[in-house]
Amino acid sequence: MVVDMLYPPFSLTTLPNVGSFANRHNFSGGPGALPEPVLEQVQEAIAEAPGAGVSILGVSHRSAWFREIVEETEENFRTLLSLPKGYHVLFLQGGGSLQFSMIPMNLLRGRGRSSDYLETGYWSRKATAEARKEGAVRVAWQGDHEDFSRLPTNDEIALDPYAAYLHYVSNETVEGLQFHRVLGSEETLRICDMSSDLLSRPIDVERFGLIYAHAQKNLGPSGVTVVLVRDDLLRDIPAGLPAMLDYRSFVDSHSIYNTPPVFAIYVMLLVTRWLRQDIGGLDAMAQINYAKAERLYRVLDGSAGFYQGHADKDDRSWMNVAFRLADRTLEARLLAEAGEAGFTGLEGHRSLGGLRASLYNAVTPQAVDALCSFLEDFRLRHREFAGERE
Amino acid sequence: MVVDMLYPPFSLTTLPNVGSFANRHNFSGGPGALPEPVLEQVQEAIAEAPGAGVSILGVSHRSAWFREIVEETEENFRTLLSLPKGYHVLFLQGGGSLQFSMIPMNLLRGRGRSSDYLETGYWSRKATAEARKEGAVRVAWQGDHEDFSRLPTNDEIALDPYAAYLHYVSNETVEGLQFHRVLGSEETLRICDMSSDLLSRPIDVERFGLIYAHAQKNLGPSGVTVVLVRDDLLRDIPAGLPAMLDYRSFVDSHSIYNTPPVFAIYVMLLVTRWLRQDIGGLDAMAQINYAKAERLYRVLDGSAGFYQGHADKDDRSWMNVAFRLADRTLEARLLAEAGEAGFTGLEGHRSLGGLRASLYNAVTPQAVDALCSFLEDFRLRHREFAGERE
Repeated sequence: MVVDMLYPPFSLTTLPNVGSFANRHNFSGGPGALPEPVLEQVQEAIAEAPGAGVSILGVSHRSAWFREIVEETEENFRTLLSLPKGYHVLFLQGGGSLQFSMIPMNLLRGRGRSSDYLETGYWSRKATAEARKEGAVRVAWQGDHEDFSRLPTNDEIALDPYAAYLHYVSNETVEGLQFHRVLGSEETLRICDMSSDLLSRPIDVERFGLIYAHAQKNLGPSGVTVVLVRDDLLRDIPAGLPAMLDYRSFVDSHSIYNTPPVFAIYVMLLVTRWLRQDIGGLDAMAQINYAKAERLYRVLDGSAGFYQGHADKDDRSWMNVAFRLADRTLEARLLAEAGEAGFTGLEGHRSLGGLRASLYNAVTPQAVDALCSFLEDFRLRHREFAGERE
Repeated sequence: MVVDMLYPPFSLTTLPNVGSFANRHNFSGGPGALPEPVLEQVQEAIAEAPGAGVSILGVSHRSAWFREIVEETEENFRTLLSLPKGYHVLFLQGGGSLQFSMIPMNLLRGRGRSSDYLETGYWSRKATAEARKEGAVRVAWQGDHEDFSRLPTNDEIALDPYAAYLHYVSNETVEGLQFHRVLGSEETLRICDMSSDLLSRPIDVERFGLIYAHAQKNLGPSGVTVVLVRDDLLRDIPAGLPAMLDYRSFVDSHSIYNTPPVFAIYVMLLVTRWLRQDIGGLDAMAQINYAKAERLYRVLDGSAGFYQGHADKDDRSWMNVAFRLADRTLEARLLAEAGEAGFTGLEGHRSLGGLRASLYNAVTPQAVDALCSFLEDFRLRHREFAGERE
């Protein structure tokens, strides 16, 4: 039960420049920004994918060229995550939402056991609701559905030692809550939705049975989902599942069971290459991401209450910073001014409102620096106005 | 039971130039070629999608901009197909293969009725196998599994008047077989996999309850699937289906239930715009496609047996021309020489072997003309050699 990683706060100015975006700083919650060097290569590949002889949009998924693309992408995941032997790397469709159903279909149905789910935010609630359709679900901890502003302590989580597995969401994208530790005991079969933080920092994959993540945060464009699954979990999948919903179809075919999302996988190859070659791996990426988040939280905390972070401090996400203004009537104005200043995607999720800055891998330290300056400037210009209203 | 459309053979030289590809002529069975004007617009959108302010790969699926993209794409389908009222146009993930399961899950489970399936080729067999997992299936006609070189006559199809629905595949991509008529009687609820011919010619949607097609033939890149479904079919969908496998989730959310494949939908918008504006609709597209196929079949038929078409003449597909050489030892040589001459994607499907030229919408008449010239030249250079071996 260790805090997985803690980085000393350090200055953004010491960080490498990891690419700057031409016109806008995109803080969208997802699909999020992609690295500029990747976008340049994607543009080329639309005309002709290097080595394929045709546009990436017209490449046959049965070509030797595409098999190599899948192999290298898989290899990049294995290297970046120091993946131990015995794990499969699968590329599927349907997003995290289809995994909400595939996991209990494959790993809960017919086991005569129940599963443990944590309800820590918008997305884990959705996962729980879908799991209930497939088998027995115990909620091992439940946050305040109206608020979801904190994560449980270990003592608060009531694990069932006989559960088929424990499912939780490592980073709640909507509320900006992130577990900075691995949950459960050594006996727990952990299944984790890492849709919004996979490849944002190192993780100890060995402690999980299955990890999944849709691509549109840190991995690539929407339309492809990555599943890392330990081989022994495949042994007891019930017979008769639809082929498209049975993990073994994708294991046996190396993710080319039917026509995969060729383009999205190709972009993911370019993103994982960028992570390995330009960034230098997940330790370096984590340092950058920590510094970005730390910089922004410092602005919120130093605003004398003008800005109010949503999450409890210990549970703050490095990826999604959800916040409000003490004077809520100013929020629309901030969004409008931010838009004019070249910042996009700062609206809070429709279920929560307020504001949210998502700081995925491709969001540069420079973009975060610019946002922080904007927020400080906005506060100075409006603090009296806000004070008058309180 | 009418032949839906018959076009007089006419010369390719009278056809409009619908764009020519720079380097290669791509005859891939899928993902297939896309129109060059579309590729140019996609390149621009990778940098910045017009009106969105950011790359198409970083646009939020909850933005007003993207909702308009979905609406216009849907509207283009409605216009191109003269869609009657009461049909939904849905954009899903998972390809045709996931529809093989979603259809019986939504429309067969718990009905106390069986369904009729036609096994006319590789893909319809796959559909039948998946349907059996969800409910009762009767095979109303079965082709020769080793060959699949013809389609049934109406008299050969044994329909069950009490069937929940009749499922068939309008165009068998692997074998190059295409129904040039609508099957069943007025009482039949028709469900049709049009993955490889939707938007290649006009169809009478009103005669179908549900039509589906993955995009990577005529509609766009892989990663998105189009479903046209009549509203009344949604009434009896069983409760408790996974949200991602229940058509109503996508009806209620206008195809934005979870993060959709934003990029693939955007490309589909560009392709359907191209069909409306550059080609002039499906009548024009059908004339072009008929002429392309007719030109190539004429080369096969006029080769004195050097080339041998796979499908019976009445059942020949306009989209996929599967053929062999009488001297099979020459096939590898043809593929090699074709590659050198700038033709790609001519390998037959791995289940059938031989050769296949796919003539989807974006394959230009000029490309087909070039292929025909190449094939005639190859024959002239090799006919004696072939003759000597027989």
